[in-house]
Amino acid sequence: MFLAKVYITYKKGVLDPQGSTVKKALGTMGFDTIEDVRVGKYMEIMLEEKEKDVAEQKIKEMCDKVLTNPVIEEYSYDILEVRK
Amino acid sequence: MFLAKVYITYKKGVLDPQGSTVKKALGTMGFDTIEDVRVGKYMEIMLEEKEKDVAEQKIKEMCDKVLTNPVIEEYSYDILEVRK
Repeated sequence: MFLAKVYITYKKGVLDPQGSTVKKALGTMGFDTIEDVRVGKYMEIMLEEKEKDVAEQKIKEMCDKVLTNPVIEEYSYDILEVRK
Repeated sequence: MFLAKVYITYKKGVLDPQGSTVKKALGTMGFDTIEDVRVGKYMEIMLEEKEKDVAEQKIKEMCDKVLTNPVIEEYSYDILEVRK
C-alpha cells in the first residue's frame, strides 16, 4: 500500500488571483513581510499496489490525464510505503 | 528570505466530498486500486524575513488565524531558506 502526496501548482508566469487575494488579505492583517503567495492543490492518494514503480506510474498517469491541466499547471509528488 | 510550503488537509474523520468525487472519477477511468483520496490546499508563501524562527512563527500565526479553519482542518509546513 502506498500513499502518494501530490502537490499541484500553477506554472511560473501564470497569474494566480487566489494567491494575490490571500497575500492582500494577510497584508491588511499586519503580515507585511510577505513577498508572494501562490495557492495550489494538495492531494493524498492511497493506492492498493504492491510495487512502488507501479504506484508511481499510476500517479503520473492520473496527474497527466486528470488531476492537472498541463497547460497552466505543474505537479510534483512523494510516494511513501504504508503498512496497514 | 524564506519559502514556506504549507499543506492544509481536513482532519481525520471530516468528510471530504471533493476527495470522494475525485476517487469516483478516477475509478471510472480505470484506476481501480485507489483506496482513498483526500483533497487539500497547498500554499507557497515567500517571506522577507532574516530569521528562520521569525518566519516560522509568522507562518504558524497565519495558519492559525487565517489560512485554516481549526475546527475541521489541520496543517503542516516546511520552511526553506532561499537566496535571492
